[in-house]
Amino acid sequence: MPKLRVQSFSVSLDGYGAGPSQDLKNPLGVGGMALHQWAFATRTFQKMHGEGGGSTGVDDDFAARGFENIGAWILGRNMFGPVRGPWPDDSWKGWWGDEPPYHTPVFVLTHHKREPLPMQGGTTFYFVTDGIESALRQAAAAAGSKDIRLGGGVSTIRQYLRAGLVDEMHLAVAPAILGSGENLFAGLNLHELGYHCTEHVPTPNATHVVLTRR
Amino acid sequence: MPKLRVQSFSVSLDGYGAGPSQDLKNPLGVGGMALHQWAFATRTFQKMHGEGGGSTGVDDDFAARGFENIGAWILGRNMFGPVRGPWPDDSWKGWWGDEPPYHTPVFVLTHHKREPLPMQGGTTFYFVTDGIESALRQAAAAAGSKDIRLGGGVSTIRQYLRAGLVDEMHLAVAPAILGSGENLFAGLNLHELGYHCTEHVPTPNATHVVLTRR
Repeated sequence: MPKLRVQSFSVSLDGYGAGPSQDLKNPLGVGGMALHQWAFATRTFQKMHGEGGGSTGVDDDFAARGFENIGAWILGRNMFGPVRGPWPDDSWKGWWGDEPPYHTPVFVLTHHKREPLPMQGGTTFYFVTDGIESALRQAAAAAGSKDIRLGGGVSTIRQYLRAGLVDEMHLAVAPAILGSGENLFAGLNLHELGYHCTEHVPTPNATHVVLTRR
Repeated sequence: MPKLRVQSFSVSLDGYGAGPSQDLKNPLGVGGMALHQWAFATRTFQKMHGEGGGSTGVDDDFAARGFENIGAWILGRNMFGPVRGPWPDDSWKGWWGDEPPYHTPVFVLTHHKREPLPMQGGTTFYFVTDGIESALRQAAAAAGSKDIRLGGGVSTIRQYLRAGLVDEMHLAVAPAILGSGENLFAGLNLHELGYHCTEHVPTPNATHVVLTRR
């Protein structure tokens, strides 16, 4: 069975995965960029965005692990774009230009039907309107023997956690306080849901933890 | 002005400072002991409890810092003991035996009057029934030019945070998930209250962060 994995998901010290007041100027919410400083510096991130250089070491190892053995992705609609309600047309093709960094089928959760959208480099966006289990089934079929990466955002991850469908979750706890926004933990009893901390590797930039479901 | 400082306060990855179902057998709540593993190993902790040995290094440095330049302590009643309601008599003298590890005046918040309780080694417990500001005023007078350490528990710290009275808070984020219990962050906007992260020193045992009020 392929695993459903959350990888490189950054949260603040007070548990927020995104800041308040998300909009086009602040897609991660106000203050949300601070969560991802550990990732921006890595070789994996730089390479993903067509740049050379970047750091190696623990932060990069975790960033790289997020792309290993991944056969499909699942994204919440807000991660795909800022469009709300029915799709007015096919002009929005994601935040990532002509060649998105996925290179696999990507299943986007939405309430509004839309035709599959093939992109360059092996990424095709499929729009799933019949719920998170359906998206997971379709992603599993597409992934074959590989795993599925659950990209986010917070509310999508919380839905899959609550349904007991996430097998493994790598969080990077950043040295930042957001105070409000989208909280990953609020009202979610991860202990009761069977998660325990199976890996703990701190770096000067973030504390990496892996939560695994029993 | 003396500072009001929280030191060596351990929280889980999901923000809990104590587990659920606190009682005499589990004074830190179920699972709560896991939060303090980083501290138990340190030389400072071992010495405090009359043992030799213990680790030195970053964990111990943070533990030791919590006792530097402290002229008075403030504790919530639950940290002083399990007795609830009016004091039946003077028999409960804290968890710590005849010579508690404070060696300063200690102001215990309670709704029920009780005479001051002098102990060996310089600790005297004073019982404050007229609120957190009063306890802080009395502790400041007793501390002189030194700082005041706010010991806990969670609900006491939250009261002082909400009132904007905590100057500095050292948290040790432990690699543990509790899922329920007493959450330090829930419903508290630390960003709005003026706190930011001014220090971030991870170790294999815990991620140490210091939040300072602007």
